[in-house]
Amino acid sequence: MIVLFTDFGLHGPYTGQMKAVLHQMAPGIPVIDLFADAPVGHPKPSAYLLAAYATWFPAGSVFLCVVDPGVGGMRQPMILNAHDQWYVGPDNGLFELVQRRARQAMNWDIDWKPARLSASFHGRDLFAPVAAMLARGEPPPGSLRAEAAARRPDWPDDLGEIVYVDHFGNAMTGLRAATLPADARLAACDHVLSRARTFSDLPAGTGFWYENSNGLAEIAVNQGRADQTLGISIGTTVDVLP
Amino acid sequence: MIVLFTDFGLHGPYTGQMKAVLHQMAPGIPVIDLFADAPVGHPKPSAYLLAAYATWFPAGSVFLCVVDPGVGGMRQPMILNAHDQWYVGPDNGLFELVQRRARQAMNWDIDWKPARLSASFHGRDLFAPVAAMLARGEPPPGSLRAEAAARRPDWPDDLGEIVYVDHFGNAMTGLRAATLPADARLAACDHVLSRARTFSDLPAGTGFWYENSNGLAEIAVNQGRADQTLGISIGTTVDVLP
Amino acid sequence: MIVLFTDFGLHGPYTGQMKAVLHQMAPGIPVIDLFADAPVGHPKPSAYLLAAYATWFPAGSVFLCVVDPGVGGMRQPMILNAHDQWYVGPDNGLFELVQRRARQAMNWDIDWKPARLSASFHGRDLFAPVAAMLARGEPPPGSLRAEAAARRPDWPDDLGEIVYVDHFGNAMTGLRAATLPADARLAACDHVLSRARTFSDLPAGTGFWYENSNGLAEIAVNQGRADQTLGISIGTTVDVLP
Repeated sequence: MIVLFTDFGLHGPYTGQMKAVLHQMAPGIPVIDLFADAPVGHPKPSAYLLAAYATWFPAGSVFLCVVDPGVGGMRQPMILNAHDQWYVGPDNGLFELVQRRARQAMNWDIDWKPARLSASFHGRDLFAPVAAMLARGEPPPGSLRAEAAARRPDWPDDLGEIVYVDHFGNAMTGLRAATLPADARLAACDHVLSRARTFSDLPAGTGFWYENSNGLAEIAVNQGRADQTLGISIGTTVDVLP
Repeated sequence: MIVLFTDFGLHGPYTGQMKAVLHQMAPGIPVIDLFADAPVGHPKPSAYLLAAYATWFPAGSVFLCVVDPGVGGMRQPMILNAHDQWYVGPDNGLFELVQRRARQAMNWDIDWKPARLSASFHGRDLFAPVAAMLARGEPPPGSLRAEAAARRPDWPDDLGEIVYVDHFGNAMTGLRAATLPADARLAACDHVLSRARTFSDLPAGTGFWYENSNGLAEIAVNQGRADQTLGISIGTTVDVLP
Repeated sequence: MIVLFTDFGLHGPYTGQMKAVLHQMAPGIPVIDLFADAPVGHPKPSAYLLAAYATWFPAGSVFLCVVDPGVGGMRQPMILNAHDQWYVGPDNGLFELVQRRARQAMNWDIDWKPARLSASFHGRDLFAPVAAMLARGEPPPGSLRAEAAARRPDWPDDLGEIVYVDHFGNAMTGLRAATLPADARLAACDHVLSRARTFSDLPAGTGFWYENSNGLAEIAVNQGRADQTLGISIGTTVDVLP
């Protein structure tokens, strides 16, 4: 299974062109759209989102990940093996949390070069072909390297920020619920929110936080939109109150 | 064929995770996105939309339907067989119109339990696995029940409301055009609209209604957006004038 | 490979119903969403967008293209063979630039009639079945015709207009970058923009134009949205300054 994690959107040409490469180079392998609306141009919040969702997928999955504001510049293209899964994308911090949370991890610089590499769309020209090779069971087309190269030791283990707002207006934080005290409250934009098990536990219009289905602390309003009701959006700071 | 009918959106993680389950449990069976933007959290208008679109699909299709504001609460998960098609989802009225319009229908409570059931994402953890089982040709993993359990006899046969606004700004009602007099006019937000056969019959900017390609009465403006021009949206009342 | 180019959006029922037809009639053939948000109801800018993106796809690809404001009216349904690729859709200018740039091209009127043809959704009822036939390797179900019928000789070879705004707010013109002087500047909405190689060449917030990964001149703002920053949208005139 090849899993797409990008900030490309689905409607325009980018996701489709990557899928065209994947279907040609790895025919018959399912391609799943996980996120096409990761925080645009922001590898840091994207890294927390990816780490929360990737481990749900089975061993052997290949993640093709493109949140790549530095495309065409100096950042290296890389491959990561962690949790018995493959990750392909730019070495800009996007894989920091996946790697940090893995018991074992191996890193490769991508050496393979396409016949034609555009300056602005490495997702199609470089990362998709490499993902297809890995999905076909081929060895990583690159050089194993010491892990230290592009790590982000200064990034926290959990991020007190909104990293995603979904179709319902629910706002995911970069905090794993399992790391929080059972009675922790979250504060965002002058609102203080208590924990609930799920939506139907509370009256309509009430704001709360809960552990979402992939383990992140998520802020919601029963039968309402948390983003609009509470005035929060991607990047909003979220504080944990004991 | 497995057909998705949800209010999840396509960009975020929900549709993708359901598809990952389907591809693993029912490999090789096509998965079709019918609606990912059914009226959010509103099973009633969604029920009229689903009933209008489902019968277009071939016998044997499996509909995985999730408009489920009560997820995690008391509503039962259910399976319906109607029109030689399978429907899987929450027993909250979402299948009321499909069932009412079917010559024969059978209902099951879902007995099967997943190894892990999240509180907020039964689409992925419960309904998608059951849809995969049905698509593989297995018997319903549940108990046949008397049909009466969660019916909605108080809902009308056709709904005088806007139930969907499409990418063009056209507004579908919950009224089947075949139930309306040939010269019926529709009234919505102080506008009175006459019937036309199709868009190109009328001058640009003119509002009208017509029978859409799945049989619903739909309000449109030639070369314009009916939602913005007429001020209508999901939930707007639509009256039939004789 | 069947490639979809439409103004239908992905969320609602139109793209899904077309894919249901394709999966039934051409099982196992990959279907790619290239654009689902071509300029709504505007075949002219759509034609420049399609021509820029189609030639990237391999020989044998079948393009199912529906930007069709005249559906249900007098415009003919047609098939084009150009660049060893098939194009199926309405004869309303949508294929003008593909055809003009091809060394050789052949045109057919579609003679095949479906059992049921709705007035408003030829994409599902007529064009998708024909695309499936071509993807299966069957001959065009129509009559070869002299090319002249519905050409648009008055349309320019390159279009000085915004034809698409992507998920990032980057604005594509209908101008092929290869046709412009190396030091050309583009003017749009009182802004004058110089050429850059790619995003990371410039300071954050700077507007510029560059050759995008499919050869179009595209206007962007590094780490910003060109549409909002510069006030441009689909249809905005773009002038070339020498």
